[in-house]
Amino acid sequence: MDMNRRSLLKGTAALGAAGFAAAAHAAPKGKAWDETVDVVVIGSGFAGLAAAIEAKQAGASVAVLEKMPTPGGNSIINGGILTATGCPQQKKHGIKDSFDLLANDMLVAGLHLNYPEKVKYLAQHALSNYEWCVKTLGVEFNPDAIGQEGGHSVPRYVFTKNGSGSGIVSKELEYLAKLGVKPRTRTYVQHIIRNPETGRVEGVEVRTGYRFPKAESGKVVRIRAKKGVVLCYGGFSRDVQFRMLQDPKLVATLDSTNQPGATSELWRETSRIGCLQVQDDWIQCTPWNNPKEKGMGLGWTFSQSGAAEYGLWVSTSGKRFVNELANRKIRADAIMNEQSKGLRAVAICTEPNMKAYRVARPGMIDKLLASGVVKKYDSLEAIAADFKIPADTLKATVAKFNDDVKAKKDPEFGRYINNEQVPLTSGPWYAAEMSPKVHHCMGGLVTDTACRVMDVATTKPVPGLYAAGEATGGVHGAVRLGSCAILDCLVYGRIAGQSAAKAA
Amino acid sequence: MDMNRRSLLKGTAALGAAGFAAAAHAAPKGKAWDETVDVVVIGSGFAGLAAAIEAKQAGASVAVLEKMPTPGGNSIINGGILTATGCPQQKKHGIKDSFDLLANDMLVAGLHLNYPEKVKYLAQHALSNYEWCVKTLGVEFNPDAIGQEGGHSVPRYVFTKNGSGSGIVSKELEYLAKLGVKPRTRTYVQHIIRNPETGRVEGVEVRTGYRFPKAESGKVVRIRAKKGVVLCYGGFSRDVQFRMLQDPKLVATLDSTNQPGATSELWRETSRIGCLQVQDDWIQCTPWNNPKEKGMGLGWTFSQSGAAEYGLWVSTSGKRFVNELANRKIRADAIMNEQSKGLRAVAICTEPNMKAYRVARPGMIDKLLASGVVKKYDSLEAIAADFKIPADTLKATVAKFNDDVKAKKDPEFGRYINNEQVPLTSGPWYAAEMSPKVHHCMGGLVTDTACRVMDVATTKPVPGLYAAGEATGGVHGAVRLGSCAILDCLVYGRIAGQSAAKAA
Repeated sequence: MDMNRRSLLKGTAALGAAGFAAAAHAAPKGKAWDETVDVVVIGSGFAGLAAAIEAKQAGASVAVLEKMPTPGGNSIINGGILTATGCPQQKKHGIKDSFDLLANDMLVAGLHLNYPEKVKYLAQHALSNYEWCVKTLGVEFNPDAIGQEGGHSVPRYVFTKNGSGSGIVSKELEYLAKLGVKPRTRTYVQHIIRNPETGRVEGVEVRTGYRFPKAESGKVVRIRAKKGVVLCYGGFSRDVQFRMLQDPKLVATLDSTNQPGATSELWRETSRIGCLQVQDDWIQCTPWNNPKEKGMGLGWTFSQSGAAEYGLWVSTSGKRFVNELANRKIRADAIMNEQSKGLRAVAICTEPNMKAYRVARPGMIDKLLASGVVKKYDSLEAIAADFKIPADTLKATVAKFNDDVKAKKDPEFGRYINNEQVPLTSGPWYAAEMSPKVHHCMGGLVTDTACRVMDVATTKPVPGLYAAGEATGGVHGAVRLGSCAILDCLVYGRIAGQSAAKAA
Repeated sequence: MDMNRRSLLKGTAALGAAGFAAAAHAAPKGKAWDETVDVVVIGSGFAGLAAAIEAKQAGASVAVLEKMPTPGGNSIINGGILTATGCPQQKKHGIKDSFDLLANDMLVAGLHLNYPEKVKYLAQHALSNYEWCVKTLGVEFNPDAIGQEGGHSVPRYVFTKNGSGSGIVSKELEYLAKLGVKPRTRTYVQHIIRNPETGRVEGVEVRTGYRFPKAESGKVVRIRAKKGVVLCYGGFSRDVQFRMLQDPKLVATLDSTNQPGATSELWRETSRIGCLQVQDDWIQCTPWNNPKEKGMGLGWTFSQSGAAEYGLWVSTSGKRFVNELANRKIRADAIMNEQSKGLRAVAICTEPNMKAYRVARPGMIDKLLASGVVKKYDSLEAIAADFKIPADTLKATVAKFNDDVKAKKDPEFGRYINNEQVPLTSGPWYAAEMSPKVHHCMGGLVTDTACRVMDVATTKPVPGLYAAGEATGGVHGAVRLGSCAILDCLVYGRIAGQSAAKAA
């Protein structure tokens, strides 16, 4: 782990009190509204679009605000895997699952820092949410593939057919367009306007024609929200200063999977106006990103759906070092631990074990081989030579693991052995390096199951304010399980929209 | 662990928007000041009193505000152990230590969530702080005893002669009285007044004659702070709602070591006025409190300075289950893990190993035996019988551990073996049960090394606002090491007072 951290507060200390931006604290007031709608939704990812759909369907006029030049936020570059306990794909593969098992997996991984009510409510909506995606939105999921991200007891995620969250976002956008709502891009929210006398959130002050990341660009416009403002502004993984205030280990040299707009200004703004936030210091690093790629990339699909579920992970010591299906924090920490010893983490799989991955993500492996992100080898020895792994150690590790695969039991790390995994004996072989990247903010605004945001002074709802998705806390606790983000965003996004539309 | 958590938000959800207390958000304004001083200090524990001393010595007029009927906050019931790297007691026992080793111990236990600059600055002041206590305040420490709390590489804490934090608080109060300042008790701060135009903190609105915990008691008075307000309001371990919002596992049935006034109202208030807080969800449970006592009690002194440093800990399985000198979180988690299996945790020591404890805390063991908190036994078998521990297992555990003591090495848990520990063979024997209690809030206000509080919107100092002690975050990260709290409070408390007095 990089211990050469830059001085967190040195810069700010030098500025002194004179450098204080008074305007940032003062609530804009007394100015007229430029426009009035029923519901303002901030953010156009999974959650924001779901909220907008529901609010509009309930009869409200809706404005969806997006600061970036294109809609979709981080969701549009998301990996497109959705927890869908009870879905047909699980039945096809004979997998037994239950809402209780899902909730329990989330609580265990979350170290019980998550709010049980919110977890249980979410888990109970895993199937109905899948069905909403398919029947209402018309999202196309791969009908055959079922996957298992780390920390889940059983395979339970489905894949969008196009292999990305955009497979859902595009359908949300289409549906919303039919309802007559189009996200307003390049619209930056610089203030949420809360009436200091009544405590009610009344609207927002935005910059239209905003050019990210220029704070002063665009024209200032004030939009009144008669019924409510719905906060779906996502996480702050790309905001190095803010993430280092929460966790100083997340230094600037750590890449992030997120789009550049994943910054903290609305986390700060909601704090400023007195919203209760919790657990902001729990920031997830992915385990399996490929250091050859910038941002999220595509190499992780091989390392997860190929190697973690059907192959194995080793470090360049030649040994396994973690349960390849442990939760993301455990795996990311384990990789960083190997890296601190000067070792690298390598995902390995064989052609006979690539079947499910090929079904789930047609053509993907060819793309990754062409770009060099994943490499193909004739033998395990060739992988050892390429990554400078002691060949004998690696061969012994694989031989031992093959016994575990045959026995359907991994005594060393307790890894779930997939029914369809076969021993890694015949090639061709595939391998890729893995390195953690900053990925997801588990903490955030405290909301109830009606998605009302709580006031920090009273723990009562802030009138006129709702939230869903990564901007909120309490759902995932210490660790968000992979494939639970879309579920969280859609289920609570829809409720937030419904609640706002119903408000007086 | 108790999984029967009460519904966190059920109550608040039922209240609805109509229940919102608008007054709690609105900053009081336009009213006249009833009184003006240079510096207002909130809280009269270690940090607040240190701040008041420095501010007054620097020529400022000072008001110290304390909501409870007596001064001293939680510090006055603190265990009175102070990290003092480089002190004469360490030299007397031939212990090698360094400021770097102390800082490293704090960062490792803190999982590097702590801010390195603040940790290093603190560690470098461990000796000068000890000397300030002795030479300036006249605090009496036991001249012979040196102790080692969990997570420290070597013994490095000294004991106040009276065995309590009151040994320091009383000297701070005396010193302050000579300077002409007396804490104003029963003075509850209900608002910190921040000018919305300038962003400056200008004073406080208090209730004098306040009767804890009645929110509406006393008379409302507004005190202007010309130079600054210093926040030393401590933690919120006694506030079940707020601590469960941060960590739902910390249910009402978990006792706390803290005094009843350790509640959250000023954590909420500083959030409300836009102060940056981090890591509030890291809340420490002690490992070693005695379930026969309410609150902090005294039994922990035996379990720590007796059994953990010179004896051993077992569960009622008869086996050791943790490094007795691991940090508090590791030990508390380990005990809760044993409890979840239906087992209890027991601290054991023998008379020949009680020497250091008897020196450090004269007469304490007799008091604990008289109250029945610790019990005395003729034999190890008698302990086994009393706690329903399988005797053969316990005897085997002790025999094995005695070999480790002779070898000065604990291969099983890596425990530091004190030079002066001898094998546990001859009695009398002593034993006591242990059970975790909620103890210390690691997170809090973000401050720089000048103790200026940062604004959440800008990460720049809030003009006129300073903080120190448990109210602040960034020093301890995930785990505060035992005996580092007083160090933190005194070093940064003094700086906060100096900074405030110097302010324009």
